[in-house]
Amino acid sequence: MAGKVFFSVSMSLDGFVAPESVPGQDELFAPERQDEPAVRRWLAQWTELQQWVFPLRFFRENLKLGVGGEEGLDNDLARHTFERTGASVMGRRMFDLGERSWPEEAPFRTPVFVVTHGSREPWERPGGTTFHFVDDGVEHALDRAREAAGDRDVRIAGGGATILEYLNAGLVDEFSITLSPVLFGTGTRLFEGVDASRIALEPVRSRASARVTHLTYAVRPR
Amino acid sequence: MAGKVFFSVSMSLDGFVAPESVPGQDELFAPERQDEPAVRRWLAQWTELQQWVFPLRFFRENLKLGVGGEEGLDNDLARHTFERTGASVMGRRMFDLGERSWPEEAPFRTPVFVVTHGSREPWERPGGTTFHFVDDGVEHALDRAREAAGDRDVRIAGGGATILEYLNAGLVDEFSITLSPVLFGTGTRLFEGVDASRIALEPVRSRASARVTHLTYAVRPR
Repeated sequence: MAGKVFFSVSMSLDGFVAPESVPGQDELFAPERQDEPAVRRWLAQWTELQQWVFPLRFFRENLKLGVGGEEGLDNDLARHTFERTGASVMGRRMFDLGERSWPEEAPFRTPVFVVTHGSREPWERPGGTTFHFVDDGVEHALDRAREAAGDRDVRIAGGGATILEYLNAGLVDEFSITLSPVLFGTGTRLFEGVDASRIALEPVRSRASARVTHLTYAVRPR
Repeated sequence: MAGKVFFSVSMSLDGFVAPESVPGQDELFAPERQDEPAVRRWLAQWTELQQWVFPLRFFRENLKLGVGGEEGLDNDLARHTFERTGASVMGRRMFDLGERSWPEEAPFRTPVFVVTHGSREPWERPGGTTFHFVDDGVEHALDRAREAAGDRDVRIAGGGATILEYLNAGLVDEFSITLSPVLFGTGTRLFEGVDASRIALEPVRSRASARVTHLTYAVRPR
């Protein structure tokens, strides 16, 4: 049986999944840029949004940051999201930023299909992640990811524009939002440009830890 | 002991507390306008956002719609929000719309202070609601509401712009959002223009029913 197509993101209470872009966004994590005020502001906001992830045992294990870490609901859900994923689809901008910041063992450990416009040979990383570059459209990238995922689910990993493209195309079955207790004011809104007249949501579950609320919805046509 | 200043609203998952305004917004509920496509769209969206409220026993009681209705978490929280409120503050646009649509027994049953620019005599309704019109600023309206509320809390009832004005002025202690499983795409965003650099949030509680998730946050300076 084929798996589901889903996305899972952390969102600020005012609807943002990323702070406002800075000039030279791809080089954001470069050591020599860490003193620039705009870069510091971006990283401070992004860190607050993702705050719930860093102490988790699963996160530390997956990034080989050492043993230990918090267990409990947040950890269980982060691990579940990882384990259900048989393949990911990613936009080019997310890949460009990640290429410069993921550790050598990129944290996906499955095939990742990057929606792009140029051709490039697959890029195999130690630890199980191979990036495949797909230049003939979002539907084809998803087809390849479904095939690679087998029984498991396909995650639309991001960024925001890529997620929205799949959502508006009616290709997402379900999504999870981890709602962080933070306001951004500006940045990339998850649902900016959503085709609200065609998408209905059905609550699947809502569970809260001391830090965040994890919301899951099924997507239905309307 | 003085109570808290809070607001409590229903919000779409993409951050809207009201659909996009229609021309002649104040007359939205007029019977002769119910066939206009823009009015129908507004009402359809607003009804979806507020869907969780209509079947509740408390809602039916308070609006004198008859006995019966659903009990449970949603009902308990709606009743709690009503009972904690000793006085409300409201913007002029919300009042103008409500003046034409509330039943004769307006559903507040406490003093309501309307932030406005003209003077008008207090308007007393049967059932305990009296509207007072305050034309010397948001802080003065709040002072009067605090005094009227005594030990109970002051609710900033709405609309969105008024809530944001109080939030940005650092005058809100706590707020609750009932997150509805609906996407609007356009409309009035709750946090549009929020001064994110000065507001920190602390999760107080998060509870879900089958329909919606009720989130409460304390507001802290940062």
